[in-house]
Amino acid sequence: MAEAENQEDEAFGITDRLVSEVMEAVDRNDGAFLTETLDTMHPADVAHLLEQIDTRERRALLTAWPGGLEGEVLSELDEELREEVIGQLNPGELADAVRDLESDDVVDLVEYLDDTQQEAVLDALDASDRVVVEQALSYPEESAGRHMQSELVRAPEHWTVGEAIDYMRSDVVLPDQFYHIILVDPRLKAIGYVTLGRVLSHPRDTPLRDITEDTFRTFHVEQDVEEVAQAINHYHMITAPVVDDDDRIVGVITIDDAMMFLEEEAEEDILRLAGVGEGSLSDRVIATTKRRFPWLAVNLVTAIFASLVISLFEETIAGLVALAVLMPIVASMGGNAGTQSLTVAVRALATRDLTTANVWRVIKREVLVGLINGLIFAVVMGIVGVVWFGSPMLGVVIAVAMVINMVVAGLAGTVIPVVLEKIGVDPALASGAFVTTVTDVVGFFAFLGLAAMWLL
Amino acid sequence: MAEAENQEDEAFGITDRLVSEVMEAVDRNDGAFLTETLDTMHPADVAHLLEQIDTRERRALLTAWPGGLEGEVLSELDEELREEVIGQLNPGELADAVRDLESDDVVDLVEYLDDTQQEAVLDALDASDRVVVEQALSYPEESAGRHMQSELVRAPEHWTVGEAIDYMRSDVVLPDQFYHIILVDPRLKAIGYVTLGRVLSHPRDTPLRDITEDTFRTFHVEQDVEEVAQAINHYHMITAPVVDDDDRIVGVITIDDAMMFLEEEAEEDILRLAGVGEGSLSDRVIATTKRRFPWLAVNLVTAIFASLVISLFEETIAGLVALAVLMPIVASMGGNAGTQSLTVAVRALATRDLTTANVWRVIKREVLVGLINGLIFAVVMGIVGVVWFGSPMLGVVIAVAMVINMVVAGLAGTVIPVVLEKIGVDPALASGAFVTTVTDVVGFFAFLGLAAMWLL
Repeated sequence: MAEAENQEDEAFGITDRLVSEVMEAVDRNDGAFLTETLDTMHPADVAHLLEQIDTRERRALLTAWPGGLEGEVLSELDEELREEVIGQLNPGELADAVRDLESDDVVDLVEYLDDTQQEAVLDALDASDRVVVEQALSYPEESAGRHMQSELVRAPEHWTVGEAIDYMRSDVVLPDQFYHIILVDPRLKAIGYVTLGRVLSHPRDTPLRDITEDTFRTFHVEQDVEEVAQAINHYHMITAPVVDDDDRIVGVITIDDAMMFLEEEAEEDILRLAGVGEGSLSDRVIATTKRRFPWLAVNLVTAIFASLVISLFEETIAGLVALAVLMPIVASMGGNAGTQSLTVAVRALATRDLTTANVWRVIKREVLVGLINGLIFAVVMGIVGVVWFGSPMLGVVIAVAMVINMVVAGLAGTVIPVVLEKIGVDPALASGAFVTTVTDVVGFFAFLGLAAMWLL
Repeated sequence: MAEAENQEDEAFGITDRLVSEVMEAVDRNDGAFLTETLDTMHPADVAHLLEQIDTRERRALLTAWPGGLEGEVLSELDEELREEVIGQLNPGELADAVRDLESDDVVDLVEYLDDTQQEAVLDALDASDRVVVEQALSYPEESAGRHMQSELVRAPEHWTVGEAIDYMRSDVVLPDQFYHIILVDPRLKAIGYVTLGRVLSHPRDTPLRDITEDTFRTFHVEQDVEEVAQAINHYHMITAPVVDDDDRIVGVITIDDAMMFLEEEAEEDILRLAGVGEGSLSDRVIATTKRRFPWLAVNLVTAIFASLVISLFEETIAGLVALAVLMPIVASMGGNAGTQSLTVAVRALATRDLTTANVWRVIKREVLVGLINGLIFAVVMGIVGVVWFGSPMLGVVIAVAMVINMVVAGLAGTVIPVVLEKIGVDPALASGAFVTTVTDVVGFFAFLGLAAMWLL
């Protein structure tokens, strides 16, 4: 592993050279090289490799690779590629692949598969695993119950360190990864947890309940899994216990899964702010085109709306064509200032930094920032207007329009996301269109309107 | 804690009501209420509360609160507020606050403080802690060495499970949080690690080296800490061992810190894409104005550049004012399509999904997506042009300009971030200005140029 790290001075991932070597081995049907290379790679790296080649190459690779892929590679794959890859495995290969996965990984794998493929995966599981997976699938999408790991270690509250160790050394099946022992009362209600570090560092006769963490908190099985992930991050938890209506422990969300959910959420926000929607780099042209179309359509409507405002002033522009030259500047500066404010507001809403307690202070700040930057750029553009077109009054018009539009940008950029959040619309998704409509309309209207009044 | 969860059906955080209650207690100088409420809250929640009130209120709260804040609250605070809050503590309070922090938390706390404040915090530490903190500060900013936790548990490679347990039960000081025992050879070179779960579930006479994880990998002390965090996420690691030039173990980066670094990185990308730069909701007006100014200045230059293009066609516009009405539509659609492509490219570069192995495929895809969406919107806008202005040729001009600009948007939106990354400029920061310049210039030039050729 140390070599891979040094090759390109990278902390992780695969090199382009490795991708070429693997594809050359596929071309000469060198099964031995593929087994030796791919079977020793981390499943996340194999998935990464599969994501970097195209459909034809993936098919050739999966055919030429004698061992075939492990289930964990499927879990690591982009959602969009899973169906394709699963479709290329025969039932026996699929069964081999999924049998060793933890229940939460199987759920992630199958939840968005079509019914036939989902059935094929479920059929490959042991009866008891299948029950667990079907139970998880019965919880709402995006809920803690859907994504929790049901494998966990619990102990009666009256146990000592020694009893816990003896239990774990017995032939009980333990989860691959666990960091806490969860204490339960006789009705399986979760009442606290002990880190493994504390179990290991205390004498055998220490009662577990004397060494529990004081930060223990539980999450309901129907809670949004992203909220649980945010709580894990906020409170620096490693294990988040998930309980049912009767406070009985039913599973855990672990920090490594929480990290993945938070990454997905941030990614989603970034892509939504840019009007891209979900999706990945491996998507096909048609899927990508379809996903980007709606946002462009919304933008076309708002752009036409702005054009209608301009058309109100056709005569003004005909009288002074310089206005047509300068008007995009006012709209563009407002649009950028508005995007700045709305991005800050959208992220602050997502991280709960923006609340009813401080919303007025933030709005006041954004308007003031818009005013100050507006004044500075008003002076600059006023001078540009005078120098370029030799008309002091034109300089005044563009300067005043600039101040108006940048103040409005600060106001709209904050108020619109807050209002959208209040009425239950995702502000990351919808704020951009509204804010730029406002700054375009106000920008063109202020500039051309003032010009009509003061210049002609 | 269950009550807090139900109050607003939230997974974490504090309610607006709590903020009001605390501030009312401050007004009536009710120290008992403050102690009872704040001392039992999680430090992350206290920090969150401090972030939601303003400077005057913070000062009043810190004065009225008899116990005063713990060091962990300082660690959890927004960087911008730390200086302010630390400035309000007297040396004794500051010393009490920082003494119990882990070394990596002290480093995070002091690294951006001014020299006087940094000195005051360092003076409050024990001599041995101070050495550790100063050592960490000697590593480059943003390096693994700067941010690692130096408290860790290591064991000679020949130890058994029993020896490890006896060692941990002895009066050795263990880290607050640890999840692995790291095996070292006689020269302290890290050679593997064992999860605590495995230690607990194996008989006392099991050699530790028989139960190590096969995914063990180490990171160099000068590696970028964000890369280490991405590797932790990619490989689902809980502990990332950090080694020096001789492969000797010097610390660990734990997953909860990695989660924080990844969140910060995603946040940074979002804010940079919007031209906001770093900063937080608690920043003052002047700081915020300054930070947003450069991006707006860049935008002004590019907007003026686009206006220069328009001014080339003043005569054309004077001949047909409808062109001034319609031209922002072409530029705006190109700008949006370009932003979509560049956002996908910037994120794919950040997550290493976009590499030399697949860059041509991605460029081809983006251009094709631009072409298809361009053709659809060309038809729509062609019709709008004809219906609105009654000129079929004007419809053709806007349609052709639309296709050209959206294809260019797909191309520029992918190529520009890739080139910026190659030459070592952060694509999240700089791509937006370049791409919208290209789409504005091409949009106005194509539309007005075609109009000049075909319409007049």
